[in-house]
Amino acid sequence: MAKWIWYHGDFEIYQAMKQNLDREERGMKWPAYWYTSGWNHNVFFSRTFSFATPQTFSVRVQGEGYGKFVDLDSQKETKFAFAAAVTCPAGKYRIEIYVANLAGLPCAYLDGQQVQSDENWQASNFLGEPVSVGTSSLFRQADQNPMEVDYHHEIRQPQKIESVNGGVLLDFGHDLTARTRIKFKNGFQQVTISYGESRTEALDVQDTYLKHTLQAQDDPFGHYDTQKAVFVTKLRAFRYIYLPQISKMEDLGILEVDFESLEFPRIAKFSSHDEQLTKIWQVSDRTLRLCSGIFFIDGVKRDRWVWAGDAFQCFYMNRYDFFDKEIVERTLLGLRGELDIKQHLDTIVDYSMYWIISIELYYDTFADKHFVQNVYAKLKRLMDFSLEATDEHGFIRERKGDWIYIDWADFDHQGPLAAEQMVLARALQSMVRVSKLLNQDAQKYERHYQKLRENIDRYFWDPTQQAYIDSYESKKRHVTRHANIFAILFGYVDDAKAKQLVQRVLMNPEIPEIKTPYFKFWEQEAFAKMGHYDQVLATIKAYWGGMLNNGATTFWEYFDPAEKGAARYAMYGDKYGKSLCHAWGASPLYLIGRYLIGLKPTQPGYQTFEIKPQLELLGDFQGKLPLSASGDYVELHVKDNVLTVQATKAGGIIRVGQQKIAIPVEKAITMTV
Amino acid sequence: MAKWIWYHGDFEIYQAMKQNLDREERGMKWPAYWYTSGWNHNVFFSRTFSFATPQTFSVRVQGEGYGKFVDLDSQKETKFAFAAAVTCPAGKYRIEIYVANLAGLPCAYLDGQQVQSDENWQASNFLGEPVSVGTSSLFRQADQNPMEVDYHHEIRQPQKIESVNGGVLLDFGHDLTARTRIKFKNGFQQVTISYGESRTEALDVQDTYLKHTLQAQDDPFGHYDTQKAVFVTKLRAFRYIYLPQISKMEDLGILEVDFESLEFPRIAKFSSHDEQLTKIWQVSDRTLRLCSGIFFIDGVKRDRWVWAGDAFQCFYMNRYDFFDKEIVERTLLGLRGELDIKQHLDTIVDYSMYWIISIELYYDTFADKHFVQNVYAKLKRLMDFSLEATDEHGFIRERKGDWIYIDWADFDHQGPLAAEQMVLARALQSMVRVSKLLNQDAQKYERHYQKLRENIDRYFWDPTQQAYIDSYESKKRHVTRHANIFAILFGYVDDAKAKQLVQRVLMNPEIPEIKTPYFKFWEQEAFAKMGHYDQVLATIKAYWGGMLNNGATTFWEYFDPAEKGAARYAMYGDKYGKSLCHAWGASPLYLIGRYLIGLKPTQPGYQTFEIKPQLELLGDFQGKLPLSASGDYVELHVKDNVLTVQATKAGGIIRVGQQKIAIPVEKAITMTV
Repeated sequence: MAKWIWYHGDFEIYQAMKQNLDREERGMKWPAYWYTSGWNHNVFFSRTFSFATPQTFSVRVQGEGYGKFVDLDSQKETKFAFAAAVTCPAGKYRIEIYVANLAGLPCAYLDGQQVQSDENWQASNFLGEPVSVGTSSLFRQADQNPMEVDYHHEIRQPQKIESVNGGVLLDFGHDLTARTRIKFKNGFQQVTISYGESRTEALDVQDTYLKHTLQAQDDPFGHYDTQKAVFVTKLRAFRYIYLPQISKMEDLGILEVDFESLEFPRIAKFSSHDEQLTKIWQVSDRTLRLCSGIFFIDGVKRDRWVWAGDAFQCFYMNRYDFFDKEIVERTLLGLRGELDIKQHLDTIVDYSMYWIISIELYYDTFADKHFVQNVYAKLKRLMDFSLEATDEHGFIRERKGDWIYIDWADFDHQGPLAAEQMVLARALQSMVRVSKLLNQDAQKYERHYQKLRENIDRYFWDPTQQAYIDSYESKKRHVTRHANIFAILFGYVDDAKAKQLVQRVLMNPEIPEIKTPYFKFWEQEAFAKMGHYDQVLATIKAYWGGMLNNGATTFWEYFDPAEKGAARYAMYGDKYGKSLCHAWGASPLYLIGRYLIGLKPTQPGYQTFEIKPQLELLGDFQGKLPLSASGDYVELHVKDNVLTVQATKAGGIIRVGQQKIAIPVEKAITMTV
Repeated sequence: MAKWIWYHGDFEIYQAMKQNLDREERGMKWPAYWYTSGWNHNVFFSRTFSFATPQTFSVRVQGEGYGKFVDLDSQKETKFAFAAAVTCPAGKYRIEIYVANLAGLPCAYLDGQQVQSDENWQASNFLGEPVSVGTSSLFRQADQNPMEVDYHHEIRQPQKIESVNGGVLLDFGHDLTARTRIKFKNGFQQVTISYGESRTEALDVQDTYLKHTLQAQDDPFGHYDTQKAVFVTKLRAFRYIYLPQISKMEDLGILEVDFESLEFPRIAKFSSHDEQLTKIWQVSDRTLRLCSGIFFIDGVKRDRWVWAGDAFQCFYMNRYDFFDKEIVERTLLGLRGELDIKQHLDTIVDYSMYWIISIELYYDTFADKHFVQNVYAKLKRLMDFSLEATDEHGFIRERKGDWIYIDWADFDHQGPLAAEQMVLARALQSMVRVSKLLNQDAQKYERHYQKLRENIDRYFWDPTQQAYIDSYESKKRHVTRHANIFAILFGYVDDAKAKQLVQRVLMNPEIPEIKTPYFKFWEQEAFAKMGHYDQVLATIKAYWGGMLNNGATTFWEYFDPAEKGAARYAMYGDKYGKSLCHAWGASPLYLIGRYLIGLKPTQPGYQTFEIKPQLELLGDFQGKLPLSASGDYVELHVKDNVLTVQATKAGGIIRVGQQKIAIPVEKAITMTV
């Protein structure tokens, strides 16, 4: 099977730039506010063949160039033009395809009996040794163009139409990323569309984030087809559409929306006797899928950008939902950009660290050493770039233009921040492990890690408070949850200390609570790691259940139960600045799958895996979780104290009480629990 | 006057990529075989203003984005959409324009009473401190697009039409870069156009470099307009067109060509009683102009690429012909690419060195410190990148992928090459001078230069042969002209040694002679420097005159008087691989202007200048040479032993015999000579 090929990583760089330029706010485009990495415009692809008979094949490219046969015996070179039928004589040949593309991505598609473009080809940008080509299962057809993704389209109708304040309000049930299509009854009308993730926002025509007054001509945000009397807008995310000038839909014509997405397999399932928990799982699944396309993006209305911190959490959730390998690879490559590194990912230092850790996570998830090999040079450059900003203690410090983020929380930011050092240490561990996996020298990183770990404890551990403080330079001895959560999660404290941290910090109401689902994730994982599964379940029900109680049909970027009314939708000083469909809101997928159903791989790529369900907490439930990118899964249900479990692949163990039982393949076993 | 603005250097990177992808050969596109630097796709422009009254202005961009007013007192930010009329309140504001462009060059044009985009704005790519914006006098209109250059067009008819071998041969007199336009008499005909820089090539339909069989549909090299029955081809360079299938032009219709160029001022003039010398000057001028557009390119048929060595010589010729400042800036920026340097310019080490020297030459020519400041970071990176490949003696060595070129000649390439070290030393001198000019630390470069100069003499000077040898590692003690020419030119030998080198090397028929006009340039300059003006004149007449005798109407890439017939057009193993209109063939412009008419600046920017005409050699002549980019010139003529001279600007001295006379402004003086 032939595939489109390109210089490894360039498709993702191109698409990531496209994605990061695709934000709209109040009639303006809002490109991401960071340096955008470029792709190679001039490359060549090559592969060596040995042909018993002459081989005819077709060549298509995006761009311009020529091909070359290099006879490996005589070194004679023969050029050829790209055509539907090119013939290479019998013999040993290297086929070279030179493609340049000023405005876009140079790529090629060769198809013949023995000659097919695929992963066996190499690519060069005329610097150094050739690298592997990149491919995508999305681009297997000759008539495709890797710059244009073939999305899945689904026409959706409003679930409810309501007359409000003299206008019409359409409710599509939950957020969608869609083009609005209006088929006018009586020809073009300069109608205004006021969008909203919330009803409040859509009805606030003055201040809504996304609003569009259609223009019959030269409309930068849509297009009117005079012949068909149909206007199609650009892609936008919304749950509600309000048409303030239209009192009856029938007067305008037909409004429907074209929901655009990439489809991911529906593998994971979860339902519980606890309907709220079932609903939380379903809304999490919807939220994650809406934020999953070429890349894991942060949110559908805002920012529509690829953020490494958000993506890092999606990589975990993905394992417990659709287990897609390519979206992880695309997101990693799109985030990282070109080989040279000039700025932290999305400008955030911790996000660079998460990217590094993600490579280890990728390996543990998919056990694909080939991909890890292909990104190793980029991994190393990013690690080295980060270490350039470390001081004599090994602490990473903020450079001009760097953003030490961690979370939306009040940190004591003077000098090095404790949580950031924890994340650096964890990234160094990933760097060491991945380097060793590829037989690369890791000594420099091991030494840095050792020094850093020692100095974290020396400088940030407060013996009086028995906790890590944010800053030692400020002398304020300020404690937040974040560094302490990381210390537990990364195993940087022994069990006794960890237990103390749970009591003194995590369960301490005097330490400001976490307000983002983003950091709730890590906090709950720390509780789970310490055996407080009850706490995890309670938080899921209270915090995510709290959003449901506030009418959420997708999970939010930020949730403060104390906020009421319109204030719930505000953020960043913007009345509707909060994203109401935000990937990092979907972490119950992970928390339920990993800790309540209790599935984890015990070897890379789930060669072996283990399930330890929290039966007492869950009660009756049904669960199905993926085990591989090729559709394997494990399924279990509990009803009336009988547990049934089976898997499609070997290597599984289920732990119930003190028992460890092998999970049979394609054959259910039951046990009384 | 408003101008389009972009991130400094990006317009040139974009256009250079376009240029370097614009080569065609036998029905195939041939992109340059090196790494192509990318431009920034996401930038913002900013400038601070103080407005007494509200200011309204228009904003146009190539790309998408938004604008922002930042109130400098309150720091309050207000966003605005790009529109024909945007109003900023009175007060102190920073105006910011955010523009991203996935496929092209992000740039902006603002026009109002006080708000106008121009050189006073800054640009940022979100890395480090903002830089100056770039502008071009070619883009001053709002309705322009800096990605598309508005070329000058001129329809040309064949000067001669001839029936040959059953077809029709059209001669346009000399090479042109033009689109062929056929207005068919009886509708579309699938005619074949065989192009040639020589008559021989055009008639060789089988093997010609550029041939095009027109297709009515989907023709990648041209377009047929059914309604007008007109086919217009892409741009190609040729002197001849042969239509093998057409016995009479009348049967086909009308063929004319649309000659596309940028126009440069016609300042320099030269005519002599010696008609051959006059002709050489005219053909040189034509050759240089044909190779001058957005950039100085090497040749019009081939490669159509921007090569730093060729451009370096053009920078010298430009001073004695049209004295255009912007083409030099564009060429420097296009060659150099993005700030990071990954490969030597055009892959050639010596070409990187010439680029460095060119910055000094630029300053001496135009005295524009601002431009030098703007490229200093790129200059320094290139110098440092080059020095990374130097050894303990300071010698630069070939790394994998580097090309040590110097000239098409047989060098003894084992280990460091002498001529390359000379060029490195000269580049270090430029680096030191430019650094000091900008008050930058130059010590590192000074030390390297000193060590290198000492080691060049220690390792490459052969006391027996009294000459520099190519290689000391090979022990072959091989002498070529090149290093010895550089030693004279750069003043790396004292006068006595230089005189010896002229005798032992330059005038030694046993040392293989120079075959390229490229190195003839430096050789003649060395002769001139040593006072052998007679030799310079003789070579101009013999070598360039030799090309004229071979029917040249533009000067060639390579000329070996021994080659006869079709062999004259072959190069690189290609029957028609030799470029017959090659910029480096135009150096008589410089040699005549600089050494025979004898003009040179004696202070940067020609603040003072001197003319020392070789009156005995020239006899009666008229000459006019530019003195500045704003049209200043000096004019002199000699007739019947009376010399008349005048200039449009002060600062000039003319030397005649032992006399030094100030050249009057706008008023001729005459003297008997």
